[in-house]
Order: sequence, then structure tokens, then C-alpha cells
Amino acid sequence: MAKRRLRLGMVGGGQGAFIGGVHRLAARMDDRYELVAGCFASTAEKSKASGIELGVDPGRTYGSFEEMATSEAGREDGIDVVSIVTPNHVHFAACFAFLEAGIPVICDKPMTTTFADAVALQALVANTGKAFVLTHNYTGYPMIRQARAMVEAGLLGKIRVVQAEYAQDWLATKIETEGLKQAEWRTDPARSGPAGSTGDIGTHAANLASFVTGLDIDELAAELSTFVEGRRLDDDCRVLLRFAEGARGMLWASQVACGNENGLKLRVYGEKGGLEWSQEDPNYLWHAPLGEPKRLITRGGAGAGPEAGRVSRIPPGHPEGYLEGFANIYSDTAELLWAKLESRDPDPATNLLPTVTDGVKGVKFIEAVVESSEHGGRWTTARI
Amino acid sequence: MAKRRLRLGMVGGGQGAFIGGVHRLAARMDDRYELVAGCFASTAEKSKASGIELGVDPGRTYGSFEEMATSEAGREDGIDVVSIVTPNHVHFAACFAFLEAGIPVICDKPMTTTFADAVALQALVANTGKAFVLTHNYTGYPMIRQARAMVEAGLLGKIRVVQAEYAQDWLATKIETEGLKQAEWRTDPARSGPAGSTGDIGTHAANLASFVTGLDIDELAAELSTFVEGRRLDDDCRVLLRFAEGARGMLWASQVACGNENGLKLRVYGEKGGLEWSQEDPNYLWHAPLGEPKRLITRGGAGAGPEAGRVSRIPPGHPEGYLEGFANIYSDTAELLWAKLESRDPDPATNLLPTVTDGVKGVKFIEAVVESSEHGGRWTTARI
Amino acid sequence: MAKRRLRLGMVGGGQGAFIGGVHRLAARMDDRYELVAGCFASTAEKSKASGIELGVDPGRTYGSFEEMATSEAGREDGIDVVSIVTPNHVHFAACFAFLEAGIPVICDKPMTTTFADAVALQALVANTGKAFVLTHNYTGYPMIRQARAMVEAGLLGKIRVVQAEYAQDWLATKIETEGLKQAEWRTDPARSGPAGSTGDIGTHAANLASFVTGLDIDELAAELSTFVEGRRLDDDCRVLLRFAEGARGMLWASQVACGNENGLKLRVYGEKGGLEWSQEDPNYLWHAPLGEPKRLITRGGAGAGPEAGRVSRIPPGHPEGYLEGFANIYSDTAELLWAKLESRDPDPATNLLPTVTDGVKGVKFIEAVVESSEHGGRWTTARI
Amino acid sequence: MAKRRLRLGMVGGGQGAFIGGVHRLAARMDDRYELVAGCFASTAEKSKASGIELGVDPGRTYGSFEEMATSEAGREDGIDVVSIVTPNHVHFAACFAFLEAGIPVICDKPMTTTFADAVALQALVANTGKAFVLTHNYTGYPMIRQARAMVEAGLLGKIRVVQAEYAQDWLATKIETEGLKQAEWRTDPARSGPAGSTGDIGTHAANLASFVTGLDIDELAAELSTFVEGRRLDDDCRVLLRFAEGARGMLWASQVACGNENGLKLRVYGEKGGLEWSQEDPNYLWHAPLGEPKRLITRGGAGAGPEAGRVSRIPPGHPEGYLEGFANIYSDTAELLWAKLESRDPDPATNLLPTVTDGVKGVKFIEAVVESSEHGGRWTTARI
Repeated sequence: MAKRRLRLGMVGGGQGAFIGGVHRLAARMDDRYELVAGCFASTAEKSKASGIELGVDPGRTYGSFEEMATSEAGREDGIDVVSIVTPNHVHFAACFAFLEAGIPVICDKPMTTTFADAVALQALVANTGKAFVLTHNYTGYPMIRQARAMVEAGLLGKIRVVQAEYAQDWLATKIETEGLKQAEWRTDPARSGPAGSTGDIGTHAANLASFVTGLDIDELAAELSTFVEGRRLDDDCRVLLRFAEGARGMLWASQVACGNENGLKLRVYGEKGGLEWSQEDPNYLWHAPLGEPKRLITRGGAGAGPEAGRVSRIPPGHPEGYLEGFANIYSDTAELLWAKLESRDPDPATNLLPTVTDGVKGVKFIEAVVESSEHGGRWTTARI
Repeated sequence: MAKRRLRLGMVGGGQGAFIGGVHRLAARMDDRYELVAGCFASTAEKSKASGIELGVDPGRTYGSFEEMATSEAGREDGIDVVSIVTPNHVHFAACFAFLEAGIPVICDKPMTTTFADAVALQALVANTGKAFVLTHNYTGYPMIRQARAMVEAGLLGKIRVVQAEYAQDWLATKIETEGLKQAEWRTDPARSGPAGSTGDIGTHAANLASFVTGLDIDELAAELSTFVEGRRLDDDCRVLLRFAEGARGMLWASQVACGNENGLKLRVYGEKGGLEWSQEDPNYLWHAPLGEPKRLITRGGAGAGPEAGRVSRIPPGHPEGYLEGFANIYSDTAELLWAKLESRDPDPATNLLPTVTDGVKGVKFIEAVVESSEHGGRWTTARI
Repeated sequence: MAKRRLRLGMVGGGQGAFIGGVHRLAARMDDRYELVAGCFASTAEKSKASGIELGVDPGRTYGSFEEMATSEAGREDGIDVVSIVTPNHVHFAACFAFLEAGIPVICDKPMTTTFADAVALQALVANTGKAFVLTHNYTGYPMIRQARAMVEAGLLGKIRVVQAEYAQDWLATKIETEGLKQAEWRTDPARSGPAGSTGDIGTHAANLASFVTGLDIDELAAELSTFVEGRRLDDDCRVLLRFAEGARGMLWASQVACGNENGLKLRVYGEKGGLEWSQEDPNYLWHAPLGEPKRLITRGGAGAGPEAGRVSRIPPGHPEGYLEGFANIYSDTAELLWAKLESRDPDPATNLLPTVTDGVKGVKFIEAVVESSEHGGRWTTARI
Repeated sequence: MAKRRLRLGMVGGGQGAFIGGVHRLAARMDDRYELVAGCFASTAEKSKASGIELGVDPGRTYGSFEEMATSEAGREDGIDVVSIVTPNHVHFAACFAFLEAGIPVICDKPMTTTFADAVALQALVANTGKAFVLTHNYTGYPMIRQARAMVEAGLLGKIRVVQAEYAQDWLATKIETEGLKQAEWRTDPARSGPAGSTGDIGTHAANLASFVTGLDIDELAAELSTFVEGRRLDDDCRVLLRFAEGARGMLWASQVACGNENGLKLRVYGEKGGLEWSQEDPNYLWHAPLGEPKRLITRGGAGAGPEAGRVSRIPPGHPEGYLEGFANIYSDTAELLWAKLESRDPDPATNLLPTVTDGVKGVKFIEAVVESSEHGGRWTTARI
């Protein structure tokens, strides 16, 4: 049968944006999508200009996502799925518009700016039955899949300690007032939500910890800091964690840690062994079985299992990176959508895709961190 | 103006092949190519089967590259460029067919299996005036571009010592008799040419050394080994190097070095400083200015210049890998081809693309290594 | 003038002990001490057996530290200083005995098992005017001295975030019931004090953080865990920290983190830069000046200053280790003692030696951690 | 029985020397030697000044090694062993003097400046039956002992490839004319012998390769370079190696490789696995069993055997370094000497001490490298 690519629409990601281009590249990586429509900016004109650059039919570039949802839902060749890649405050309304129009959604994180919105979105997804995927893209890294599989298989035994961190330094000075668009909205409560570093990167670390261990965060005690004078949101966040089943841990997110670029690291220790992984060297996973020498498992090398292999493209020693991990989320979403289109069961690995429930947990995590910090670090529930 | 993608054809890369898929992904990465034709296998039937999988119009899948060259050259919407991704022994004839048909060529390395063929191809490229790019893909890594720029800017002073190596272990046992296609042709003199590890990976190391330092290899003294019993080509190659301008060095290529996956490493030392780079951690470049602490330059971080930035897609700390580096070769080739189509000068950075002359040097390197080894390691010219 | 070695006595460190041998080796490293007396064990017989092995005159091996203090204080050639290297619960009484006898003391950490004892000891040291050094040996590492000097010189600007951790795995199972002496006393409240991992290794991390930054811990919020069933003290400790002058941080100490041997790590981030150091690779210090590439400063290499050089013995690239760092504490103590004997001012670097006040802070840290953990992680003062 | 330390004498190592202090510290580390006599410098006066600083009885400091040998041999309490730590050109005569006087010798490397001298010394050692140990100190590192044991146990299978290198940068400029004593004699043919980097550090790499693999170097092909203008000996040396039993390899020694301090590295690959070790991180040994993930064996950790444990002092994760490795040579020598004094068999591990025969091989290696380089890199025997 001849190949068909899924028709992809996009909200956000116009000229000057960062993450939109990443989503498009990720969608293109395995040749399973074709970008055919978009509301790339907040005015019709700007949206069209971006669309032309991207090779999108001007008739399918829109100035509002509501118009886009309606219009695309009405076309024979309408989009199969939409990616929402705007600043956080737009996510909720945009997701709503497309889901209500019957169009599956891929949405950036954090999912919404309030817990109430997150819960409402969760209900809508349930009601519409449409696919909804949240781009917690780091879960797409092969060695993260490997780590999860190893924990699930019991290689670490009962989990005791989880250390998660995400350290950056790009906000070490007040660049949000120097015209850097990425910094502007991320430090603006109106667009970013109630938290800064916590929402932008802390949620990734929290999500990854739960993804790999299979354990939800039950309670947390946090302290937020804003080190850069005049900044309106936290730029450093330190959290004690109580996971389900008695596991304990810590989480640190910082945007002022000089010398760190995207230092997302996860360390998991159980009764029988430990795992360590770093996003900046993503093709490696340390496994320390208790009482044996540490092993360095490489993507595709001996010791890596089918879970890693399934989301790899090239042999070990030829590094895959951030874009390939991100693409795995898109390609698994394509599988999920095709399975629906073809009325078949999807590959079970699509169960690993981040869901609207993960989105709810992420927003709850943010709110719990803020609440705990405001109350002198008291233990606060993060359960949804 | 609306976007147009270049029409790409491919020779080789059908079902079961490895590098063809890499080329296609690399071409797709920046959305500048569209695969529209191919001779994916040696029979029309197999070729068509692969083409269908790849979404290529069955009317443009071919059973022979000669037919493909003729047919595509005759179409209004014929291919803009062809990628030759077959085993080595096919490169020469395929390149010839397309160049003579007026079609630009992207060809895998080593370029040909004999020096005479390489020289003949060089002449043909000159005569036809068509673009020809050799996929020494490692030159596409941002930090390799960075390293070259630093040497060129004189930051290392006069170069003294160059250490290049490419260590693998996948041929540590005789897997070529166990049905592994990739191993079969690479260890078969009829398909691979006069050398094994030397041609397959040694040429990459040699090319990279020259690319970064700007220095040709003048002479070399080599010893080849075949450690796996019954293997027909070298699986380990050790070479002393004399570069132009008095620089000296060593090169090691091995396919039996247990624990190495794709250990391509380059170390360059000059009067004023040193550089060290490893393909398995490609986003980093060590710079040791004499008398100062070593610095770790990251792709896109402070210390990385425009040459690296130009071929980067995402911020530092979000690793790019092998596919992105490979894609840079394709995207620069696209720039080269568009400049021709639009009768303008291409971006000067396209001068960094590996040329047919680099291909001649690579084949000369192989022949010199084999000759030196056969003559007790005597110093042998590698000049072309 | 002919050389004279200081006469050293030791309490503890008999057969089967670990840290006593380390102290002796550290004392011997720079040839400034001679072991001449000891109460190596809790019975006269065992003590003598150990003394003979160590080449100590049997007439100067003792069965009780009280007897030793009295006897040595009365000799013309009595010891110049005593090292207390027993389990924690003995420290206080032994220190008291020697100080009251007018003999300077080198004592292992944690200094005492209660805060009241610590304060009493502090007063006694003040009253007697005798030298007292606590072996927070990690402060003796050259690159820790370097880090402190860099912070003091303002290279990092105002400190924002401090991340300290000390991870081990040797207590991941219940080896204290398997006859391992080192594990037995460390997990026994009667001998170790109110905390396990917190006192044994957490205090090292806390001390190091303050040593390098010059900032005391003001308040902390902690959670202790005992993961190994039936263990009587914590084996994992997680703490949020508020340092003086607005710096914030975290501390993790674990003895159940599989794959970690002595993973003492310190990361310090200020307005102008960051520093990272790991005890397992102690000859290196990462320095990330904001907006410049990270540098790897090596012990004795370019970028290392006189503070590191003063406590180094061999050229960079020839690694020094734990014993050399420990020896620096002993050799600086020798300088302090000689200066007193010679009625001159000691080298100002002896001001860096860990004092009885550091001991008080360490014991306060332990008690604050335990108290905070017992009260649901509430913020608790660690000020003395 | 009361402990007795061996009486140690020293030739060389006076004020301003480097390696003498290392030898003394190494001797002191395990408290098995006492320095009691010395000819520390070339005049009686200077020798005495150094001796006083070192606490040596002025009656036992000498102005010539001949006088020292005679005098010490005649004393009841004469030295048990002498360490020769002078520049190379003095080794031969000094060794001769002490051996003929019946005194065992510890000698620095390279052993002599000519092969003839080396052979003569070997004969003398045989004739006198006195102990002779060459301080190829890197063989004392625990993980080097571990590596050797693993190769010997067949874990790597038949050895195929050996890569040895020792890269420094301290001679990247002409510091020998700037008053640096260490550089002066090392670049002076009259004191250093016929080679520079080859003798000073290349011999260490060659010795280590043979020590770990158990394979002698049969033949070599070399090229020497002197990159610093006006220097009189090689400062960079590149060699192809043919080991016994068909193993092949390369060796690189450089003193001009900017950014390298003491980059001694050894990589060994056999049919069944590989090992990698670096002197600058000596507590780790990578083991890559074919078809399994790489393991990082740590000194004292799981996976390290008794050969490493025997020469370790402290637990894994507390790094030991260069001085501890060096001390292992001294402590094993002490065992060897005590066994003779006590007329018993020494610990079999003393068989691993570098012998006079290793010294002959080292000098032969130097001469073969020089000869091969002078003859256009022709294969030259290194057999003795």
C-alpha cells in the first residue's frame, strides 16, 4: 500500500519561536507527518508569513486557533492532528478548541496554568475519546525507555531513593528585559503560570522520575527562590519528595546554575541496584547491580533491550540526540493515530506516551511546590 | 516565494541496507529534499518494493542506475540530484552514469575502489561542471567545523602532532559468515576494494585530520593486520603519518577493538595549544591553550563561533548527534544546488563540503597504506 | 638545625580498625610526626599487641586513655599531640582527658555525640588554650583549598546555590549483623550518636559546603530515612539548606545508593560563575565563569593558585588522593604546633584547619537534621 | 617481635631535585624504611646540607657515591639498600659501586644510557646475587596489577592490539634554557642518553604494555621528532610495535602535546575483550567483555581481585594516587629484602617488581627507536 503521511497542523511556532521548529523537525524525522495547516502567530498576517516560509498552503494558515479548528474539522483533507506549541497560557483554550472539533492534540508542557484547567481538559479528553499526547519529550530517549524497562523488570528491586535535577544557567542574569522572547514569556506569570523554573524544567524532572520508576509523587516539601532581582517567577526550586511505596527523593531545578546548559539528570537507587542517566550524554545508562561492577549500557549495545532498540535509528556509538528523542514521541503518536484510523490495536509501546493524566500530575506538582514553599516548606500533597 | 524541495533520487539503500536510510533521514532533516526516484536494489522488483515502502512513485523506481539516469535526465520534473549509497564497487559506474546525464551527485565514501577510477571521476566532474559531494559526514559535526575554524584562525599556532583514530569492535568475530549483510560486503575485496578497516573507517579518520588541520598527508608508513582468521581484508590498520608543513601523526583504525563502538577521535597539537574531539560525545570540544586551563567548548555555548552555530539546530546542552551532522552535509549541498539553480554564489561555507578531490585523496590514502604495509612499512607517498 | 619529628600519641586505631591506619599514614606522609605512644584498644593487652606491631615502645602503650594522658603529660619526652580515632562516643571524654593534661588534640569527626558535649569541649579548648584540630580531612584536598580561595576572591560573586552530597552504598544491606566492625558501631546509637549517615558522612558534606563558600548553614529542613529493615539509625538523609547571606542549597547523604563508593560532591553557583568538584576525582576543579567556556583547573596546572600549590607534593597529572589530602591536615597541624613550640606565628594557612567550633557546628547540624525530620521537616535552626 | 625499618641510603635527590623526594615519600608510606645515609649531591657540602634537612646523620652524608658504598658496606648498621635517583648518566656507575659493595639497589629508569652498560649491569646483578629493582613505578598501581591478572587469567583471550601512549606538554616551549633543572638534564644528551621523550616517558609506556600483557616487544618501526627549535633530543616519538605472539600495537610519547599533563594510557584488546586504563584516573579500569556491556572496575570494588587489593590501602572511592603506586614498589622491595634477611621465600607478588632485565629491555627499546627512526622507520629488533 502506498504510504500516506499524517496531516499535521500547528498552533504557535511562528517566526522567532523556538520549540515550534523542534516539533516540526521531530514530526519530519521518521517521515510520518506532513505540515499542512497552522495558526503560527497571533495575527493572520504574521501567521501567513510564517506559513509561506514553511511551505504551508496560504489558504490553510489562520489568524486564530478557533477559526483553524473549525475550518480544518470541516475539510475532507483536514488535519489528522494538531500540535499546540504556544506559551503555556494558550494551551488550555487551544486544546479545548481542537478536541471539541474532534481533532487529536499534541500539546507542549506544562499542560495548563491552573490545576482546574488541567482537570477540565482531562475530562474533555475522556469525553471526546480523542488522542491527547503531552510532549514530555525526554521520555522518548532510548535509554530512558531502557531504564524504565529495567525498573519494571525488577532489576533494581524495590526503589528507595530517586534524585532528579534539571540545571540551566541561561537565566543567570535578567535577560528577560533584553528582548529575548524565550525569556520574556517564561518569566511572565501571565503567560507562564504560577511558577518559573518549576514549571519550565522542574516538571520535566518530576515527570521523568515517575516515568522511569513507575511511582507517583505523593507529597513534597519545597522552597522556591528568585535569585535575579526583579524577576517575577522562581528561577531555582528545591524539593524533597515522597514517592509512592515508600521511595524518597529530591528534585532540583535551576536556571541560574552557571555552567549548566540542560543538565537534566536522573538517579534511581533500589534494593538491588542503581541507575544513572544524564540528558547531555543520553546514549549511555549506568547500571550498578549491587555487589557487581558498574556497567555502562549504550543505546543499541549489549545490555540494551528491545525497549531502547525500538526507538533507535542508528547503531550504538553513533550518537542520537534531543531531536531523535523528541521524534520518538511524534512517531509513537503517529502509530497511535494510525491504529485508530485503521481500527486496530496500536503497538503496546504507545502506552508509554505522556497522557493528559501526566499533564494533570505536572500541573499539580507545580501548584504543590508553590503552595509548600509559601507555607514554609510544609509537606503538601501532590496526588491528583 | 513558496518553498520548493529539491527532488532527490537514490541508488542503493533498499530493504536491509543501513546507510541508505541514514541518507534519507539526513536529507529530510531540514526539509530541503523530497525523495522522488530510486534504484534501490539490483532488480526492478526489489527496487519497486522498497520504493513503495518509501512512498516513491512506482513509475520512478528503476532496476538499473543506467536506466534511472537516462530516464530522470529526460523528465521535466527529473531529479535535481542523486545519492549513491551502494557498496563501494558500484560507486564509480553509478557516479559516471549520472554525471554524464548531467545530474549532480552525492556519493558515499570511499569514492572508488581504485585510484585510477578516482582520478577519472575527478576529471569527469571537472568536465561536466556538475556538483559532486562526498559524504565524509563527520565533517558536518558543528564542533568539527569549530575546530577547523580555530586552527585556521591560528589559535593553535603551527601544527605539530595529529592523532587520529577510529576504533570499532563489531568485526571482532567472523560475523561476515553469519548472514550479516553489512559485514559481508565490507569484508569482500570484490565489493569493498583493496582494504577493509582502512577504507571503511580509516579514510574517515584521515579525512577528518586533514579537514580540521588543513594539512594533507604527504607520506605514510603502515602495517595492516587481519586478526580474524579467514577474513579476506584488514580489520586493523596502524599508520605513521607525515603531514604537509612538518606536522607528524598517527592513525589507527580497528574493527576488533572490544569495547569500542564508533570511537572516532581526533587530537591536534600545535605550538600554542591543543584540541581534542570524540565522535561519541560530539557536542564538546576540548581546547587547551598553552599555559592556560583547558576549556570545554560546547556546541552553541560561549566559546563556540559562527561556524559551529551555522550548522546547529538547537541550544547547547540539548545534544545533536550523528544524524544532524550528516544532515549538515545534505543541507549545505542543497544550498550549493540552489545557488546554481538561482545563478547566485552559494554560502561560502559550502566550500567545506567534501569534494571529488577529497575522494581522490581518500582512495590514494587506501592504496598507499596497502602498499606501505606490503613493503615492510616503508614510507610511501600519499600525495595525489 | 637538625630535624625533629613531633611525638604523636594515638587513642584507638588498634587491630581491625580502619581510620587509625589512615591517621598514622597521614601523619607519616611528610615526615613530621613519630608515633611514640598509644592506647590502641580498650584493654591493656590488646593495646600492647597493636603497639608492638606499630613499633611503639611497650612501656608507652596504655589500656586507658586517662592513664595515657596522665603518664604522657608527666614525661620529659611526652607526646606533643594526641590523635583521637575511636568511635564517636569516646571522643568527648578522651579529648577532655588530654586537653586537661595540657596535651593538644587531633580528633576525628563528628566531634561528640551531643551538642552539650560539643559546647563543653569548645569551652575547654578556649580555657586551656591548647591546639585542637578536627579531621574534616576533605578540606585538605588542594582543589578544595583552590575552590575556597576562588570564592573568597569573589570569582563567583555572591553565592546563590550550593549543592552538596555524599553517596555511598556499603550499607545497602544489613552488614552490621554480619560481623563487619566498621558497620556495627556506625549503626549503633550508643556508639555513633543520634544519627547514622547524617553524622558519618552528611557532616563532611555540610562542612565542605561551608568551608568552600565561607557561609554557615542558618536553617535546614530535613527528612531522614532508614531503608534497611531493622537498622537503628538513618541510612539516607535529605536536607534543604538556608545558608547565611541568602544562599540556598540541598544536601544528600546516603549509604544505600548502589553504585556509589565515596561520592562526595560539591557544586557552588554564584552570580558570576560556578564551581564543581568531586572527591573521587579530586585533582580537578571545574570553573564555569558566566558567559565563558567551562575550564578544568588541575592541581598544579595553569589556573591553580598558591593555596592549592602549598598543599601539593607532585606535578599535575600525577594524581594525589585521599591520603595526601588527609596528610595536609596533619602537616598543617604540625606547623601550628611547631609555631607554638617556637613561639612564632604559624603560617596563616593553618587558619584553614577545622576547629573545635567547626566541630560544634557539625554536631548542631546533626541535631538539627534529626529534630527537623522528627517534626515533619519544619525549618530548624542550625546556628550555634 | 619488635618492628625494624630497613635502613635506606640515597644517591641523588638533594635540594632542587624532584624525584628524590618522591622516592623518600614512597619509602616512608608504609613505614618500612628509614633514611639513614645519602650522597644527595655532587659535593660533600651540598650533600650535607640536604642531609641535615632530611634528618640524616651528618656522619653519613657523602660527597661521592663510591665513598658512600665503601663506608656503608663497612658499617655494622650500614644501609640495607640504596636508591639511585640521579640523572640517567650516573645510574650505571652508581649501581656498580653499590652492587660490588654487596648492597642491594633500587634504581630509577631508564637504567643506563647505553645498551652495553645495561647488559653489563645485568651480568653484575646475576653475579652478585643482590636484589635489584627498577622503579617503573606505574606497575605499582593497583589497577595495573588488576589488568595484568585479568590478561594472565585469559579474560581477554589472545591479545591482538595494544595501544600505549604517554603525552605531556611541559616541554612545549624551550624551558630548558630558562633555568628549569628538570628540563635541562632531560634534554641534554650527555646526561639523558640518546633519547629525550622516548627515554623519559616512552619507556614507561613500553614497560607498562609488556607488564600488563606479558608480551615482549619484538620489533618496532619509529619516527622521532624534535619540534622545539634548538632542542637536542626528541620531544615526540611515534612507534609501530610488533609484540610477541602476533600482537600488534602503537606507542606515542610526547612532551609537546598541549593540554596533557601525564597522559599515560594503556589500551589492550584481545579476542574476548578489552581493557582501558589511564594514569590520571588510576583507580578505574574499564573492562569490555566481548558482547557484554563495559564495566568500570574500581580499586577495591566488586570485580577487583586480590592482586589489586594486596597493593591498596584504603576503600574504593577514596582515591589512591601516584605516590601510593610508587610506594607499592618500595614496599614490595622491602618484602623481597626482608625475605632474604630472614632466609625465607618472599611473597610471590614480588615477582612483579621490575628487574634488571626489564631495564635491559627498556634501554634496548630506546636504542631500537633511535635506530629505526634514523633508518627511515625500518622495522628494527627490540629483542634483547
